[in-house]
Amino acid sequence: MERVRAIYRIETAFDPEVAAAAMAGEQSSGTFVAVPGETEELKARFAARVERVTRLEEVLQPTLPAAHTPAGRAVWHRAEVELSWPIENMGPSLPNLMSAVGGNLFELRHFSGLKLIDLVLPPTFAEAYPGPQFAVGGTRRLTGVEGRPVIGTIIKPSIGLSPEQTADMVRDLAEGGIDFIKDDELIAGPPYSPLAERVRAVMAVINDHAERTGKKVMYAFNITGEIDEMLRRHDIVRDAGGTCVMFSINYVGLSGAAYFRRRCELPIHGHRNGWGVFDRSPWLGISFVAYQKLWRLIGVDHLHVCGIRNKFCESDESVIASGKACLTPLFGEGHRPDTVMPVFSSAQWAGQAPDTFAALGGTDLIYCCGGGIVAHPGGTAAGVKSLHQAWDAAARGVPLEEHARDHKELRQAIEKFG
Amino acid sequence: MERVRAIYRIETAFDPEVAAAAMAGEQSSGTFVAVPGETEELKARFAARVERVTRLEEVLQPTLPAAHTPAGRAVWHRAEVELSWPIENMGPSLPNLMSAVGGNLFELRHFSGLKLIDLVLPPTFAEAYPGPQFAVGGTRRLTGVEGRPVIGTIIKPSIGLSPEQTADMVRDLAEGGIDFIKDDELIAGPPYSPLAERVRAVMAVINDHAERTGKKVMYAFNITGEIDEMLRRHDIVRDAGGTCVMFSINYVGLSGAAYFRRRCELPIHGHRNGWGVFDRSPWLGISFVAYQKLWRLIGVDHLHVCGIRNKFCESDESVIASGKACLTPLFGEGHRPDTVMPVFSSAQWAGQAPDTFAALGGTDLIYCCGGGIVAHPGGTAAGVKSLHQAWDAAARGVPLEEHARDHKELRQAIEKFG
Repeated sequence: MERVRAIYRIETAFDPEVAAAAMAGEQSSGTFVAVPGETEELKARFAARVERVTRLEEVLQPTLPAAHTPAGRAVWHRAEVELSWPIENMGPSLPNLMSAVGGNLFELRHFSGLKLIDLVLPPTFAEAYPGPQFAVGGTRRLTGVEGRPVIGTIIKPSIGLSPEQTADMVRDLAEGGIDFIKDDELIAGPPYSPLAERVRAVMAVINDHAERTGKKVMYAFNITGEIDEMLRRHDIVRDAGGTCVMFSINYVGLSGAAYFRRRCELPIHGHRNGWGVFDRSPWLGISFVAYQKLWRLIGVDHLHVCGIRNKFCESDESVIASGKACLTPLFGEGHRPDTVMPVFSSAQWAGQAPDTFAALGGTDLIYCCGGGIVAHPGGTAAGVKSLHQAWDAAARGVPLEEHARDHKELRQAIEKFG
Repeated sequence: MERVRAIYRIETAFDPEVAAAAMAGEQSSGTFVAVPGETEELKARFAARVERVTRLEEVLQPTLPAAHTPAGRAVWHRAEVELSWPIENMGPSLPNLMSAVGGNLFELRHFSGLKLIDLVLPPTFAEAYPGPQFAVGGTRRLTGVEGRPVIGTIIKPSIGLSPEQTADMVRDLAEGGIDFIKDDELIAGPPYSPLAERVRAVMAVINDHAERTGKKVMYAFNITGEIDEMLRRHDIVRDAGGTCVMFSINYVGLSGAAYFRRRCELPIHGHRNGWGVFDRSPWLGISFVAYQKLWRLIGVDHLHVCGIRNKFCESDESVIASGKACLTPLFGEGHRPDTVMPVFSSAQWAGQAPDTFAALGGTDLIYCCGGGIVAHPGGTAAGVKSLHQAWDAAARGVPLEEHARDHKELRQAIEKFG
């Protein structure tokens, strides 16, 4: 019998082994007294199993309030716990998987901290879900970018621009050599920029530029909304020759996204805004390493992972772990490709290229810069050039400062943003 | 122009006014340098606005790690902040609303704590979403219960029972006088109990019991899954004469649930498992008072709110606030009813009835007891009776102990669970 495995970090005033057993129990029968019908045979077959408890440090204060403390205890143990379930408990169904591995556990009284760190899923899930449709290869093919990251940017300001103003910015960016542009997550279809009008205005510029130059910019239109609306918006984008749609994955949700994906003919740019709720606390929630597996099975093609030296609270270590996770196959040999393109974004400019390249060991990523491109002293084209130069230097192992000596745009970027 | 309002609790080493301005800025243009095109006119029309900053206590340690601290500061301020946005920024669209009020804010460097506490939405949302279809009145009509809570229970163990074993339990519960039964959130359609077979077996018992007695037990079948699957399962339940479907709202997600709701002909029992991620920390996430508004607009009919003196970490105060919120209309006069039935569950038995009644000021709730019914010393029927007795006492203001003197089942319950 295939099993689903889940790895957690816990903090508890109980013995970690006792607390781990409580987790397994809650996710098997889950009531406060023994109930009739729960036989040993049923338990042996279907109960969640504690596979491993690895003790970590002890702390003198609980991280989260309201956890139960056994009498006389004044130390909180931290531990890594691995549980497993037979796949037949939930079937290869992501929402039901999440109810099993992430249901009531976060509220259990034993815990002053509980975070889902990783999931190890059996290949049955790869048969049940379509996975990414375009992923790294399809994105490279559609953008015509090889041997370096797809260089992207975000339309700013995120509010108030008319379709024509947006198209003007796209023209400037396309002429500047950009590969990829995305709507901000704050704009989908507001009255001042209905999606259909924005698509018409933006795609006129992109199609025209593609005809003249052979280079088609990938524009991720934010189609976030209700499912019917998203499907209509998808068709509008597709019919206008668009090559990407974007939505806010956390607020569309797992099942809605899965439904959309099966009807989608374009790459899906997965925006994780709201992610902080899941990952901001080290002792509550779900790590991105676990969560991205769900979204890859559902079949997004790009996933935001923040960026090194970002403007948010996420550590570089966490960002890199997320980026690497996106590029690590979920299953072994003989399964269809399921890696997706990590999107590095948030206060990015040429300066983070070497460290990002070194950590990822490659260039299969979308590198999104906002101010790092449009606020470059030499203008948009110079901003894009500074990024090509930085990634070229990174890939060849040349220090940025050295490369900047005979590359003006990179030098200007370092002077302004460094 | 209608505005959306959101209330947050924040913790920050910055001046709270400065931090609140950063929140508003991030949710308006959101990049790290000034960008071209962001005119004062655009800002005035579309920018998020800080409506209020109310300072609370100061603390000497940050709650969440990695927040930025201005040089020389060693105090963290707590405050309540109210922001507002013009409705045209996101339209009456819940996923886009959430991107606006709950997007990147949780990750902003200014904050060692940030929680969305409440949302005040304009009535435009009531026009865009259908709201609950059955709610309190429909649930009472379908169960035939008036003047007291709908008394419910959960099928346990949650794993391993065959459809026939489940139906046997339902028979016992129906004969015991139960009003409502729900599948556990851990069972949807596993191989050992496919939904269609469980529906067939359970509804045979329920329909037979209804024919004999005139009382039709409402059974919330857990149809959690992908949307196509949920729609098929819905039809199976409806065609068998079932009167309720249940799903794990957090893992189906907002847009998936909204899509399903518009095609659903039965009451929706909204199970919030996984909720701890959002609410377990006092300084991160989303309060239930805010979140339940989304689910009511989408149109679930029942919403889990935990229970007084529960087995989890939630305080009674929080539970009551959640229950009351479900019963408070979202909009003023002239709008269709949108209250839903709160489901009190988790270690509930007769003992919590008086406090629950006193706090809610009424009996419009589903009162779900697991062990409190099936582990009652007198058996299932006595368990149900003990709850009727307790709620009767509560509604008439008679102390439980006094009422128990001449009500054996209540007395037994107090002896075993009290």
